[in-house]
Amino acid sequence: MKKLENLQKQLGYEFKNIKILNEALTHKSTKMPYNNERLEFLGDAVMDLIVGEYLFKKFNKIAEGDMSKLRAALVNEKSFAMMAKELKIGEYINLSLAEENNGGREKISLLSDAYEAIMGAVYLEAGLEKVREIAINLLEICYPKIDLTNLVKDYKTALQEITQADFGVTPVYELTGSSGPDHKKEFEIALLLNGKEISRATGGSKKEAQQTAAKIALEKLKK
Amino acid sequence: MKKLENLQKQLGYEFKNIKILNEALTHKSTKMPYNNERLEFLGDAVMDLIVGEYLFKKFNKIAEGDMSKLRAALVNEKSFAMMAKELKIGEYINLSLAEENNGGREKISLLSDAYEAIMGAVYLEAGLEKVREIAINLLEICYPKIDLTNLVKDYKTALQEITQADFGVTPVYELTGSSGPDHKKEFEIALLLNGKEISRATGGSKKEAQQTAAKIALEKLKK
Repeated sequence: MKKLENLQKQLGYEFKNIKILNEALTHKSTKMPYNNERLEFLGDAVMDLIVGEYLFKKFNKIAEGDMSKLRAALVNEKSFAMMAKELKIGEYINLSLAEENNGGREKISLLSDAYEAIMGAVYLEAGLEKVREIAINLLEICYPKIDLTNLVKDYKTALQEITQADFGVTPVYELTGSSGPDHKKEFEIALLLNGKEISRATGGSKKEAQQTAAKIALEKLKK
Repeated sequence: MKKLENLQKQLGYEFKNIKILNEALTHKSTKMPYNNERLEFLGDAVMDLIVGEYLFKKFNKIAEGDMSKLRAALVNEKSFAMMAKELKIGEYINLSLAEENNGGREKISLLSDAYEAIMGAVYLEAGLEKVREIAINLLEICYPKIDLTNLVKDYKTALQEITQADFGVTPVYELTGSSGPDHKKEFEIALLLNGKEISRATGGSKKEAQQTAAKIALEKLKK
């Protein structure tokens, strides 16, 4: 377990009981009497709370629905695997030879599980504050810009993917009007599919009006 | 807000900032500039962690899958509404007249949301340890016997519901054998559906063997 020193340095936390870190790194394929599934269960809840609280405090105005969307964008396998890579966790995972030959050390799910398990292990041994410090630091490294537009609300892209797959067409956005003084202009955008207007919206910028129009169109198409 | 004193006594926690408790009790139907949805978002994650950790420590042997099932049995609307009733939260919720006339104070969803929001509020103001103390105390009042067989593993009932809905038949359990000395007897049970054997299992009691046989049958039927 000598080599775990590097991981602990990277993590910024030295375990008192190195066995718990070892358990967090042990994939079930090893068929050992212990593996990281229980710690992952705990770490998953730890991360939900830490990221939820982070968003709650960072965005003290946004509605619950948007907080949930933001958290879903940050708390998922892909995102945890990024953080695992940041810590080079792949190098330290204990796994079976078969899983190893199967590219296990690079697998998103294995990396994500091990990351959650390590966070669970730090939580158990050092408490919420320590694990929060580590996890938020990694979160901000992996996501330097956390905001709704960036992470969630790209309705235009979402809509285009759907209309191309379902109808083979791309939405067209037409500026149908603008109003108000220069410093507070409002733009009106119509969204057309195959020449037919699907939705219309206004916004403080063309991009904003387009996003809103795309959002309305998405809701209509879902029905 | 005078009357909130009773709720705080019941809770065993006095808020420094009573506004946050008031927010936790405010349903969105009031159309106030604030409501309890954000605190509920936070409280939901708090409860997941608290109950998850409780199960992790109480059952240090059971597998992750069973811990998840146990948690799902304890962390849900119905369960939170029970705890809300224990605290008489219904009396303190702020809601619109329409919602009030609609039986809002007794609604499972409203009670559950307010309970989660209050746990979120205690967490924000007093931290994880205080909210854990309150929540686990209530959990143990509402669920005096927390174990897998009690809360989760009624495979016989689950199987019967499925076979009756899908095939219009009820499973039959037949004792096909028993072995071992009296103080350590093993029973073998065959599970029949329409006279055809679906599964067979052994256990330390007939009930246990029946449950295992039902579990195997459930897995087979899912495929």
